[in-house]
Amino acid sequence: MPYEFKVVRRVEFCETDMAGIVHYSNFFRYMEAAEHGFFRSLGFSVVTRQVDPPVGWPRVHAECDYKHPLHFEDELEIHMLVREKKSRSLSYQFHFRKLNASPPVEVARGSLTVVCVTHQHGKMVSATIPEAMAAKIEVAPADVLER
Amino acid sequence: MPYEFKVVRRVEFCETDMAGIVHYSNFFRYMEAAEHGFFRSLGFSVVTRQVDPPVGWPRVHAECDYKHPLHFEDELEIHMLVREKKSRSLSYQFHFRKLNASPPVEVARGSLTVVCVTHQHGKMVSATIPEAMAAKIEVAPADVLER
Amino acid sequence: MPYEFKVVRRVEFCETDMAGIVHYSNFFRYMEAAEHGFFRSLGFSVVTRQVDPPVGWPRVHAECDYKHPLHFEDELEIHMLVREKKSRSLSYQFHFRKLNASPPVEVARGSLTVVCVTHQHGKMVSATIPEAMAAKIEVAPADVLER
Amino acid sequence: MPYEFKVVRRVEFCETDMAGIVHYSNFFRYMEAAEHGFFRSLGFSVVTRQVDPPVGWPRVHAECDYKHPLHFEDELEIHMLVREKKSRSLSYQFHFRKLNASPPVEVARGSLTVVCVTHQHGKMVSATIPEAMAAKIEVAPADVLER
Repeated sequence: MPYEFKVVRRVEFCETDMAGIVHYSNFFRYMEAAEHGFFRSLGFSVVTRQVDPPVGWPRVHAECDYKHPLHFEDELEIHMLVREKKSRSLSYQFHFRKLNASPPVEVARGSLTVVCVTHQHGKMVSATIPEAMAAKIEVAPADVLER
Repeated sequence: MPYEFKVVRRVEFCETDMAGIVHYSNFFRYMEAAEHGFFRSLGFSVVTRQVDPPVGWPRVHAECDYKHPLHFEDELEIHMLVREKKSRSLSYQFHFRKLNASPPVEVARGSLTVVCVTHQHGKMVSATIPEAMAAKIEVAPADVLER
Repeated sequence: MPYEFKVVRRVEFCETDMAGIVHYSNFFRYMEAAEHGFFRSLGFSVVTRQVDPPVGWPRVHAECDYKHPLHFEDELEIHMLVREKKSRSLSYQFHFRKLNASPPVEVARGSLTVVCVTHQHGKMVSATIPEAMAAKIEVAPADVLER
Repeated sequence: MPYEFKVVRRVEFCETDMAGIVHYSNFFRYMEAAEHGFFRSLGFSVVTRQVDPPVGWPRVHAECDYKHPLHFEDELEIHMLVREKKSRSLSYQFHFRKLNASPPVEVARGSLTVVCVTHQHGKMVSATIPEAMAAKIEVAPADVLER
């Protein structure tokens, strides 16, 4: 199923703020950690030298809706789904679930759009996603995305 | 003009990542720093004991569009505008400008929606924005927001 | 062996800086993550309500020697050892090993001294480590520490 | 006085943790911010292309003693002093003072040792500090360091 990836992590102390909950900026770090795990699950690294020329994936859009707070030592599942695949960009959807609740509860939902770039003379230039990578990435079925 | 606030900061080394640019999650930290400066400019702190009961401002939505990369030691202006004021929530708009470019260039644009809450039995409960605060916060004129 | 704890993690993209290596401040976050895992391994949380009054563990000293750089996706083992146990404080030693090298290489070594405190009138006051906790924490043998 | 540098900053919300105080790892970020300001005050950037070959400054030792907690919106002065200058390394001392206290109080004291390196075949190799830089950096007088 190369259209999704799940990773579970425990909330660390340094990810909380004085309100006693995970600082909202950290959800964007969590998204990226899941994305990079997804790439590894495909046999690639997001920082790859496996394609020539090497490509990078700068973010062009990021967003998150927060529903419930997350606390220190909560068990967090980050479920990433590929929402859109274009020739030069990918969009992901992220479901954040707190597993140490019965039943597990969705605490946030986010999305990310990244573009494929190569570097020319120190500048980033958008590029077609290398075929070896594009061939392995599917778009999640609509009913899975809408859950 | 209590509907906007500007703050300038220099990009720090620890805000960059191995791609050589500011990590995208840091723009959400920048947004918050501007928001808190705005509150101080009104004579309040975002962590206030000036109103009774004390209120907090958890984030319910955050997003950002990235247009150009930011680098170490770039001079960044964060321009915050109040886009919406409801009885229990505020929405802000953020324009990120790199000042050490001629002319200055908008590198990103973001937004944030926060809700006013009080704490009851350890839980956050949405609350009406205290009058003393609400009275000082205006919504930016449409033409300023659309610039 | 309640005098040590090991945790393995993979270096995340957001932990690197523009030099392409893990930012040195993150080793202090890694130390703390191992410490908190150690507490959990003893059946406690570092943020505990299992003892009365609740105690906290502010840091009074932290240091780190860096020997080799760590990169994105490196597999890092953090090996924590209890170096000293006093009535009101604990000192830990940390060995950071990069596992994806043959043989694994020690990339850094650090230490941390924390004090046990309770809160009185909003101030932290040093306190004796609760007996239930102290009874479970041993000091590592000298030969293990000196390795 | 090219042996010291002072910078004042206000503690940001995202620098605090659930204990309500600045997370201890952030003092190492503060140290670096002062170091980089010092370099700029000399007319250099720590990430420089003004010397050939370009040099980098990885950290080999870092430490900090914490005396008092720092809170959100505290005004923090970071006072950096050059403690040692060798042909290939520099050591700094840092005094952290909370200015919004009367009198201002030293909340922490730290130090950092950095080495000058160049890059050869993707590896860092220690190097002599470029003369143009070394000439501008003095060691602080003993009585100033011991204050």
